[in-house]
Amino acid sequence: MTIHRIGVVLGGTNVRVALINNTGEIIREQEQLTEAEKGPEYVIEKIVSMIQEVKGNEEVLTVGIGSPGPLDSCKGIILSPPNLPGWDQIPIVHMIEKQIGIKVTLDNDANAAALAEARMGAGKGAHSVYYITVSTGIGGGFVINGNLFGGAQGYAGEIGNMIVMLGGKKSSTLNPGAIETLASGTAITREGKERLGHINHAQEVFALAAEGNTVAQEIIEEAIHYLAIGIANLVHSINPEIFVLGGGVMKSRDQILTPLRKEVDKLVYPSLRGSIRIVPAGLGTKAGVIGASLLPIQ
Amino acid sequence: MTIHRIGVVLGGTNVRVALINNTGEIIREQEQLTEAEKGPEYVIEKIVSMIQEVKGNEEVLTVGIGSPGPLDSCKGIILSPPNLPGWDQIPIVHMIEKQIGIKVTLDNDANAAALAEARMGAGKGAHSVYYITVSTGIGGGFVINGNLFGGAQGYAGEIGNMIVMLGGKKSSTLNPGAIETLASGTAITREGKERLGHINHAQEVFALAAEGNTVAQEIIEEAIHYLAIGIANLVHSINPEIFVLGGGVMKSRDQILTPLRKEVDKLVYPSLRGSIRIVPAGLGTKAGVIGASLLPIQ
Repeated sequence: MTIHRIGVVLGGTNVRVALINNTGEIIREQEQLTEAEKGPEYVIEKIVSMIQEVKGNEEVLTVGIGSPGPLDSCKGIILSPPNLPGWDQIPIVHMIEKQIGIKVTLDNDANAAALAEARMGAGKGAHSVYYITVSTGIGGGFVINGNLFGGAQGYAGEIGNMIVMLGGKKSSTLNPGAIETLASGTAITREGKERLGHINHAQEVFALAAEGNTVAQEIIEEAIHYLAIGIANLVHSINPEIFVLGGGVMKSRDQILTPLRKEVDKLVYPSLRGSIRIVPAGLGTKAGVIGASLLPIQ
Repeated sequence: MTIHRIGVVLGGTNVRVALINNTGEIIREQEQLTEAEKGPEYVIEKIVSMIQEVKGNEEVLTVGIGSPGPLDSCKGIILSPPNLPGWDQIPIVHMIEKQIGIKVTLDNDANAAALAEARMGAGKGAHSVYYITVSTGIGGGFVINGNLFGGAQGYAGEIGNMIVMLGGKKSSTLNPGAIETLASGTAITREGKERLGHINHAQEVFALAAEGNTVAQEIIEEAIHYLAIGIANLVHSINPEIFVLGGGVMKSRDQILTPLRKEVDKLVYPSLRGSIRIVPAGLGTKAGVIGASLLPIQ
């Protein structure tokens, strides 16, 4: 008998729910608008219906939910994430468990993606994988031997707050000079607006850079430089076997990977040059639901 | 029957060799000048004699050697450490094994101390321990569940090269703004010389600061600030359960720990404030030989 599991990704804009078999293939999948503004009870009802629909007549062993932090994965509570406005201390695990009668596990979305990439994606086979998502924000997850290393308080992988430029720009609750403020999609868009005008999305900066716009090229070089500092710092503190880079900004991987690897090589000990493995994520947007389904298996 | 092991610390100035029982107690110990300038064969003969003397009539299961890097722990080779001048590609493990007929293991000295502190010292009982030694240089070791996490190429713990001040001062082969260049004993001494004159050792700067010298206080505050950035970056990337701080500079722990904890609290997510554990090493100068003796047991 095939063991089935369900993975849920609760995002600020969309909810995805998928039925996944024991080889990590998606059997059935649904996606709907989150409508977070209608409140947690409404959204949780929606998730329960979606779970029941993708489940169909299959036996489902566990449900895993990936959600943006902050959250408390031990208690199964969503705290007060910036992209689920009005949500505060929501015991989502308990609320869903009591309706579906299946064990539910919660962890942050970057950890879920890290787990999927490490077990079945670009990091497969490596002993230690540091996954970094470069998107609206920057997050990550550290996987050793196929298991998440969450850290003492669950903050392993929260590298968005890593300081890469002492005294640098500050945004939201992050440290001044935090990597997320300097190298995320939001950062590239902000710099594009300031220096180029009329920029609404990081991809427009990448497009201009590809056309030869030197200001756009400079913005991207800077973001890559900050990313390289973050990666070099991780090399000298934990030296993971492979770095897997995902997230929306990596759609422009062709403009990122080669210069990023060169920059990292400049910042690591000479004996390491050429041997730091930095690869793009392999599972695309599927990493979220697949990884969520793997959360209970640790 | 008690199992005995031998730990060796090969330093630039001294060699220490100790016979250690299975509860980590030192039974017998010897210390001699290294005289590295007399060449590897001379020093290795000396180590072999010291091993035989501390061994006496006991059965010894393994010998572990902690040595300053760079080295290749898999091959058991000391590469070309700056404080063993003239040594290059020395197969120390093989050279000692063939003379004593006991299995020998080699790793870097900071990893050995990390292992001792994690298993028997200030980190005992914690699931994950990040040990940082603040001395002439800055090094470290990452221990999970009592085992060293060496990283893919053995560079986990090499945090001396972590960038904490982009575009900051540069020394030797380290990155500009590396934490070792800004917060080590050498850094404090250098700043003392530049700003105070007549300073030959970091401890003199600490002594002046304790007497109320505001320039000395500023030098120490700056070093602590850089250390705090390094620790906060580790919190947001791996969130170890405890940070254990050793090394010569920690002799001034009373002037370091309280302001360091305050600085770290300013740089971590608000929900983590007050819960980051930073403690002084517990085994003092014994960590080296005890940790070296533990290297083969992993």
